[in-house]
Amino acid sequence: MPEATHAPVAAIVWEQTQLRLLDQRLLPGQEVWCHCQDAQSVVQAIRDMAVRGAPAIGIAAAYGVVLAARQCQGQADWRQQLEQAMNDLAASRPTAVNLCWAINRLRDLLVSQTESAQAVVALEEAAIAMHRDDEQGNRLMGETACDLMLASGEYPFAVLTHCNTGSLACGGYGTALGAIRSLWRRGGLTRVYADETRPWLQGSRLTAWELQREGLPVVLNADGAAAAILRRGEVKWVIVGADRITANGDVANKIGTYGLAILARHHGVRFMVVAHSATVDMATARGSEIVIEEREDTELTQVAGHSIAPAGVVTYNPVFDVTPADLVDVIVTEKGVVRQPTCEKMLALFAG
Amino acid sequence: MPEATHAPVAAIVWEQTQLRLLDQRLLPGQEVWCHCQDAQSVVQAIRDMAVRGAPAIGIAAAYGVVLAARQCQGQADWRQQLEQAMNDLAASRPTAVNLCWAINRLRDLLVSQTESAQAVVALEEAAIAMHRDDEQGNRLMGETACDLMLASGEYPFAVLTHCNTGSLACGGYGTALGAIRSLWRRGGLTRVYADETRPWLQGSRLTAWELQREGLPVVLNADGAAAAILRRGEVKWVIVGADRITANGDVANKIGTYGLAILARHHGVRFMVVAHSATVDMATARGSEIVIEEREDTELTQVAGHSIAPAGVVTYNPVFDVTPADLVDVIVTEKGVVRQPTCEKMLALFAG
Repeated sequence: MPEATHAPVAAIVWEQTQLRLLDQRLLPGQEVWCHCQDAQSVVQAIRDMAVRGAPAIGIAAAYGVVLAARQCQGQADWRQQLEQAMNDLAASRPTAVNLCWAINRLRDLLVSQTESAQAVVALEEAAIAMHRDDEQGNRLMGETACDLMLASGEYPFAVLTHCNTGSLACGGYGTALGAIRSLWRRGGLTRVYADETRPWLQGSRLTAWELQREGLPVVLNADGAAAAILRRGEVKWVIVGADRITANGDVANKIGTYGLAILARHHGVRFMVVAHSATVDMATARGSEIVIEEREDTELTQVAGHSIAPAGVVTYNPVFDVTPADLVDVIVTEKGVVRQPTCEKMLALFAG
Repeated sequence: MPEATHAPVAAIVWEQTQLRLLDQRLLPGQEVWCHCQDAQSVVQAIRDMAVRGAPAIGIAAAYGVVLAARQCQGQADWRQQLEQAMNDLAASRPTAVNLCWAINRLRDLLVSQTESAQAVVALEEAAIAMHRDDEQGNRLMGETACDLMLASGEYPFAVLTHCNTGSLACGGYGTALGAIRSLWRRGGLTRVYADETRPWLQGSRLTAWELQREGLPVVLNADGAAAAILRRGEVKWVIVGADRITANGDVANKIGTYGLAILARHHGVRFMVVAHSATVDMATARGSEIVIEEREDTELTQVAGHSIAPAGVVTYNPVFDVTPADLVDVIVTEKGVVRQPTCEKMLALFAG
């Protein structure tokens, strides 16, 4: 059984008076930490993608609420100020549903708080619990996903993943990358193909860095090479995370995921989504109802400040796409597994 | 009928004693020309991808043979020296079949030459004719492809293309991009989605530059966004070039093409390959017999000298993939059209 060669990566560190975030824009070249001492700097870190990944955004926002509560502690209008900060945090990235989930949980908790000092204590406890639960949930999902894969056929085998869904994207361990970590620990994995994941290059900058650091056998490829890789036959599962899963099992995730699901189906490779139940949005019926965030041209036209396209070129740069439920073989969450997702199966697991 | 706003782009200029090549590694930032005065510098320009695109490589190699013939003119062993130069040129890029086609045509012509000075004249005439024929062939293909698209349904519509198959890749006008130019001139085109085409970024650096310069409505997208774009319904054709087409109609082309063909089929979007008949390799039965060139790690790990992946990461970087004939709706060449290619149909058009 191969062992990780380095300590696990962590990207979110809570230090009572401040939140430290590993700045993911500067990886893999530099390991620089953002020190957030107020809610505004957390909003900025989320908006500018110093912190990214749906679960990590949710956890960072929760700590942002704690910082906001500290800022207005003892003031007459602390409740209004806190409400404003929560709204700002919730609006910092439009598609990530974990963000709203985390903030709504804290908002619910505030109802029973009458004093601002007590509120700070209660919010901090809740944020720390969310962070811890996220990592524990990931470990549970990882084992569940691994059981399912090892039971489904011969192993070891290769897998292919997209974007970054590891320790850097979560409270720790990772969702899709957590499943891959578990598979490696249990001797089921030959190698991980990591899509570089344009335009933000989460695969090359983050996934390759994180897996290499922990000694996992990662192979980096251009997104366009995925079809040729799947044709070779060594990859048995495509494993991805999710930014939002709707009530019918449609999956909004990093741009490129939908294409990958089509390619997997074409080659008879199974397609797994690993996500915390906070990612499930039962209030949205289907993926077509999700407004897809588009980001600026420069993500496509520049790399590290260097121009790679002609000035003024028109771009289309959606951050997410929607994979219809019928292309998903299985969704793994900490609450359980949904195979060939449908509204009925989703409702059975995620009602209430 | 919209008109081009700028003069057409040219990338290969023959000036009797030298070959000028627009250095495509430096576009779109700089327009720098390589001045090749001997065959070795042409080999280097092809190997280093200062010149790229299967037809352009073939034409550059043909002029390289002329330069080699000049170098050894009047020498006793001119024939052996020239043979060596032709072998070096043929080996400069392994997958491009036009390269071998061009050199073999010149080699055949040499059989009847007894004097080196006459050989230089004959080779130069032949190389210039190849260059001219390539552009004329492209214009013919463009019109043929356009007739076919306009006859196939309502227009105008959008198309999506991959890599660069334009003036920069050819003697002029372009193969797939030539078809798109013709479609634009005839009022059939709303916009061209251009895959950025990692790792070499031919789409953003070259196609976007070339189309923008001539006033065509180009929209640049990440390769991973193609599936989401095709789902929107505005794109009716995916149009690509080819580096080699085998006897059964399989198509070797820039990495990412195969995946795009699967995505097109999934969405009911038609998939067209536009290529000169020199790209057809009837001596190779099927795509699986093609040895796929892999290029260095740095194409994936660096952009403009800036590192975008952790040091020492393992990569898989194939330059081409193979699209099976059954995913191709039509192949358009200057010799004619093959719909739903099969061995029989290919043989009927390309025998001898």
